[in-house]
Amino acid sequence: MNLFTVMTALSDPVRLSIVTTLSAQSEVACNCFDLPVGKSTASRHFRVLREAGLIHQRDMGTRRINSLRRLEVNRRFPGLLDLVLREAATNASADR
Amino acid sequence: MNLFTVMTALSDPVRLSIVTTLSAQSEVACNCFDLPVGKSTASRHFRVLREAGLIHQRDMGTRRINSLRRLEVNRRFPGLLDLVLREAATNASADR
Repeated sequence: MNLFTVMTALSDPVRLSIVTTLSAQSEVACNCFDLPVGKSTASRHFRVLREAGLIHQRDMGTRRINSLRRLEVNRRFPGLLDLVLREAATNASADR
Repeated sequence: MNLFTVMTALSDPVRLSIVTTLSAQSEVACNCFDLPVGKSTASRHFRVLREAGLIHQRDMGTRRINSLRRLEVNRRFPGLLDLVLREAATNASADR
């Protein structure tokens, strides 16, 4: 896991909203996210997150289930995920 | 200071090397960095860092002097700069 790949992955609002959702729910299918982008763009965002090591994906029938690799990320980059999630929550409440 | 702007600014190898140099020396003039890019590209990288709030620049005669806004960054995003600098040092020693 590379810090700069992880930071780049987290510096996009759509990917950040995916990570925020996964921080609150342990497993979420790709089609259950409410994202402001088309299906192929969404797939690309999921792939960037997976390749950065931030999420795990497993297939269950026709559905692709996502989960946040919280333990691994926290072990490798202590404090980063908390910082990012706190900041995302602050920005979201400021937008309201 | 926005975390995602800061993370984007830090996710570039040239800008990261500028920040690493400034973490070791309190003030460095633009022309004293050994960067693998031309002058105008270097200027752009310094501007991205300044606009993200990571560095401070002051002019002294014809020279532009840079310093890391370490206190401000640490206060705003505790642990981030240490994480980034540690990772940059680890990557640099792995490249040797």
